[in-house]
Amino acid sequence: MDCQVIFQPSGRRGTVKKGSSLLEAARKLGVDIESPCGGTKCCGKCKVKIDEGYVDELSAETHISHVSQLTENEKDRLQPQEISENYRLACCTQIEGDILVFVPEESRSTQQVVLETGKDRVLRVNPAVRNYFVEMIPASLEDHRDDSERLKTALLDRYSHLDKELSIDYTVLLSLPVTVRKGKWSVTATLWKEQVVIALEPGLVEATYGVAVDVGTTTVAAYLCDLTTGKVLQQDSMMNPQIRYGEDVLSRITYGMNDDNGLAILHQTIIEGINTLVTRLSKAAGINVEQVAEMVLVFNTAMHHIALNINPCYVGRSPFAPAVRKSLDIKARDLGISIAAGGNIHCLPVEAGFVGPDNVAVLIAEEPHKQEKRRLLIDIGTNGEIDFGNKQRLLSTSCATGPALEGAQIKFGMRAAPGAIEKVRLDPVSLEPQYKVIGEADWFQPSQTIKAKGICGSGIIDIIAEMFKTGIIDPTGKFNMQQTSRRIRRNANNKPEYVLAWSEETSIGSDITVTQGDVREIQLAKAALYTGAKILMKKWGTDQVDSVTLAGAFGSYINKKSALVIGLFPDCNLDNVVAVGNAAGDGAKIALLDKDKRVEAQEVADFVQFVETAVEPDFQSQFVQAMYFPHGKDTFPHVQHILDTIPTVKHSK
Amino acid sequence: MDCQVIFQPSGRRGTVKKGSSLLEAARKLGVDIESPCGGTKCCGKCKVKIDEGYVDELSAETHISHVSQLTENEKDRLQPQEISENYRLACCTQIEGDILVFVPEESRSTQQVVLETGKDRVLRVNPAVRNYFVEMIPASLEDHRDDSERLKTALLDRYSHLDKELSIDYTVLLSLPVTVRKGKWSVTATLWKEQVVIALEPGLVEATYGVAVDVGTTTVAAYLCDLTTGKVLQQDSMMNPQIRYGEDVLSRITYGMNDDNGLAILHQTIIEGINTLVTRLSKAAGINVEQVAEMVLVFNTAMHHIALNINPCYVGRSPFAPAVRKSLDIKARDLGISIAAGGNIHCLPVEAGFVGPDNVAVLIAEEPHKQEKRRLLIDIGTNGEIDFGNKQRLLSTSCATGPALEGAQIKFGMRAAPGAIEKVRLDPVSLEPQYKVIGEADWFQPSQTIKAKGICGSGIIDIIAEMFKTGIIDPTGKFNMQQTSRRIRRNANNKPEYVLAWSEETSIGSDITVTQGDVREIQLAKAALYTGAKILMKKWGTDQVDSVTLAGAFGSYINKKSALVIGLFPDCNLDNVVAVGNAAGDGAKIALLDKDKRVEAQEVADFVQFVETAVEPDFQSQFVQAMYFPHGKDTFPHVQHILDTIPTVKHSK
Repeated sequence: MDCQVIFQPSGRRGTVKKGSSLLEAARKLGVDIESPCGGTKCCGKCKVKIDEGYVDELSAETHISHVSQLTENEKDRLQPQEISENYRLACCTQIEGDILVFVPEESRSTQQVVLETGKDRVLRVNPAVRNYFVEMIPASLEDHRDDSERLKTALLDRYSHLDKELSIDYTVLLSLPVTVRKGKWSVTATLWKEQVVIALEPGLVEATYGVAVDVGTTTVAAYLCDLTTGKVLQQDSMMNPQIRYGEDVLSRITYGMNDDNGLAILHQTIIEGINTLVTRLSKAAGINVEQVAEMVLVFNTAMHHIALNINPCYVGRSPFAPAVRKSLDIKARDLGISIAAGGNIHCLPVEAGFVGPDNVAVLIAEEPHKQEKRRLLIDIGTNGEIDFGNKQRLLSTSCATGPALEGAQIKFGMRAAPGAIEKVRLDPVSLEPQYKVIGEADWFQPSQTIKAKGICGSGIIDIIAEMFKTGIIDPTGKFNMQQTSRRIRRNANNKPEYVLAWSEETSIGSDITVTQGDVREIQLAKAALYTGAKILMKKWGTDQVDSVTLAGAFGSYINKKSALVIGLFPDCNLDNVVAVGNAAGDGAKIALLDKDKRVEAQEVADFVQFVETAVEPDFQSQFVQAMYFPHGKDTFPHVQHILDTIPTVKHSK
Repeated sequence: MDCQVIFQPSGRRGTVKKGSSLLEAARKLGVDIESPCGGTKCCGKCKVKIDEGYVDELSAETHISHVSQLTENEKDRLQPQEISENYRLACCTQIEGDILVFVPEESRSTQQVVLETGKDRVLRVNPAVRNYFVEMIPASLEDHRDDSERLKTALLDRYSHLDKELSIDYTVLLSLPVTVRKGKWSVTATLWKEQVVIALEPGLVEATYGVAVDVGTTTVAAYLCDLTTGKVLQQDSMMNPQIRYGEDVLSRITYGMNDDNGLAILHQTIIEGINTLVTRLSKAAGINVEQVAEMVLVFNTAMHHIALNINPCYVGRSPFAPAVRKSLDIKARDLGISIAAGGNIHCLPVEAGFVGPDNVAVLIAEEPHKQEKRRLLIDIGTNGEIDFGNKQRLLSTSCATGPALEGAQIKFGMRAAPGAIEKVRLDPVSLEPQYKVIGEADWFQPSQTIKAKGICGSGIIDIIAEMFKTGIIDPTGKFNMQQTSRRIRRNANNKPEYVLAWSEETSIGSDITVTQGDVREIQLAKAALYTGAKILMKKWGTDQVDSVTLAGAFGSYINKKSALVIGLFPDCNLDNVVAVGNAAGDGAKIALLDKDKRVEAQEVADFVQFVETAVEPDFQSQFVQAMYFPHGKDTFPHVQHILDTIPTVKHSK
């Protein structure tokens, strides 16, 4: 006899044989129910709610239920409250009549989670790596099969969606005989893409982990994720340890080419850095590094080549051909990365030139290729990447921004860490500042615990914008020494500077200042980004931008108003500007958690067109022009409107 | 217009467009023509003979040829003799009418070669690894493709039979940009199974190499082969360096289990041994180890596990389940084997219990599974393997022979190397010996250059057989001290011994003797083999054997008559006994040179049935009986016939 079953909220329906378990019915009808133990009734994760049919409504008096009776196992694993609400375990419940079943969010194996980062992003938990629990048939004198065959058969019998050509990674073979016997022939296999067993543990193990890493030229940010829940458990960052071999990409390429063994040293240095971060993250989360089964890496093209130990020199010279553009899956052990021995390292694809996997990560996070509006995306880093366009056409370029916007090459610059000044505002009359340091909830007060140590990227953009708005610096970036404030002074070398924090407010025992040199560094950086954006827009065939997205790996948010005021991007309505934090890091996490986004990454990398802006004929003149701070209501109406609100200073009529 | 083309000797025929090259026609019609340069007209290997149509026979007077004119390139690359015989290069010759073409043996890419080893074996040269030369389109500003894409496209465009999902090994990526530019965009890619680029060299490289290794418990033998010609270029062997951790398999398993880190030490030791052999072979052949692109390994099951660093302890105890039975392809770098960084290590499959890839190698070399006659195959090693049966049913077992038959645990035993006594005969009257040492062409003469150092396996079998035939030892193996010869004496411990070589004939400064202890060791070894064979025959359901094949890794040939006389195998007509040398090593070479034999290996490993002889109820009594040397015309008619030819001694009436 067949029974009609309907699963909600998916609405999938069909008939199954009477006596089938709800889990079998769900599998047959393609309904996603979490079942880490593979239906062996030992995990209690496959909770479902019987909405109709629990007690037959047509024969309510006789109380004929359309499902089998509650088992002892379910009584142990369900709360009394749940039992009273008709919750059951799908593996323990047989269908005995027509029923309507509701699968709650937490029981769906492809859940959605919200990535709480720069921007809350909703994504599917659909990782390349998943755990599968199986009970194997023990070896006996009558059954000559080997351990590998037993494991493969057990997996394929239990989980019909697995790849029939299932293979076992060599490193798993090494401990296979011991592990299966330690688990008394019950083991949890970690599979990559449903086709390779990359780890094996005795007994039932539910969680498996992944790490997403954004390898910036200056900063390396890493995120430890639970691949079963999609939660980001820990995050950490460090200065890119390669920095001692060169501050920017070109100087590292040069070091890699010229020094004996230079490439190998650079490669080894970043691998060690990544391993340090993985160790710190794992320790903080209370897991072993071997439990990390996969890693996603993003970086610009040169950093991609160097991290993979591939000669990067041809990326840096015409015709800028990378060694490989397609996304890569490399065994962690081949790269020397200390996660699970059989673990996989996924590198998102390169676009072209220096526009690498990090920009692809920004694209899969922000999805401009799915939208009608013409978006300008600026990913601010030592090597800045810019995209402009929409679903019809998307252009990209990279610009040598330098590390100033990440706090390097700035006298008191530092990365976004406790003690960094991340927000600044100046009183236009007194020119006295207010600032906020990372680690403190409020603006500076003499009593606060964490004292200022330096200024991070967002703080630098703020203070430069404020200095321009208040007339401390003029449109050319020069200090106006006419203004009278004890904070505007000349240093030992007779160079102008502005004192942002007096030494007694700091933890470093000296005043934190912003120098004329700092202003120049920021001007160079913002001019590079501005020029790149303008050239892309011209190529695309418009001088209008519908929205601007500011992304940056330096951790703290950029104040979009400050960014507009210093001219980091073309003049536009502030309502259309958003700052999203580290979108490249978010893209790396998204690719780690949802393998379908890796396919999208390859598609968008093929779709986006790379523009080599530096070879454009008017690049030089545009760049020189872009060094100025924006002003004038014809060219910069939105900036001028902001400047006009400052009562005391007028940069332009 | 279409032309009719027939290729001989395959007889393949079909129509092709007029103007197609002969090479294109051959590819289209599935005819195998060697073309290492991929048809770029720079190797001269695709010689074919135009048999009909070179000059149109129907219009002979007008001399209209059905192929294009001879090119300058062909004049450079063909001998005048060849030109006069209508030889052409297939890549340079366009088809202009109907033709008949003969493809000579040397132009066929799957050639046959003869393996000149213990037994001449004819095999196909059809390796898993082949070189492909391509000319890539150079990178330019107009063509944004990466080097990987260019290489893949060039390979797939030129060689249509390659796997469309072609991938590039990570280690090849590392030097890809430099290699393609060094070769000015002309490179030779080494592909594994038409699907993975595992090595890349600038320019045209024709040769690629492989190594076959037979990892015996006592001896490791290795063979360097040219994978393009199928020739064995060099061979070498060494004592298995693991021997210091135990002489037989069980003692090594015990060491691996008990000692801290024991397994890792054993694994590392054999890997280092293999690397030493590869280095020696490469040096002798004048190549670099990096030019070795593939290796095939054979060993018994325990040695297989240990060499791969897999815990072997469950192979050695009931129910004797191996970790993995199927053949394996492991990256050389994962095993620490120093060949090409992207190179592959192929391990033939395990049968069951201790009967491992080495026996599978014997089977694919000897092919009993394709024959009607009931064959007994005995592979003599420290761990002996026996097969019995035919194409209907094939049984196998292993027996702990001990290392005596390989020359170990014998007082003056040594492996087959220059100076080893490999053949012995005794005068039945004087009891004086004649012997032959390896390295000398003739039987011993006082003037010979190479003096005796010890006795190798075949020599030991000879001397024991001769001592039994001449009555120096009796059927129980005991010395008959009644015989008067200065060569029969008691040693310092008052134990009997026979002097095979006086000290002045040796290079070791002492007499080379055969002791009572040596006789006992040989009795134990031969009893193990004999008992195993008898049990298999009984299981199979016969007491008749149609042929006996003796294989042994110890390098020199066993004298089959001596082997029969000592009772190494059941009594049978000597005409049906062959000694084939190291058939396991031959099987390893065959699997290296012909990838189709790897498929056959897996099939035969699944076909053969393993018998655990040691658990048979009558094993013990059979073994004790088998300790005797064979005699008596009822049970051992063929042996007795031999004994009867000795005039002086009669062991049995």
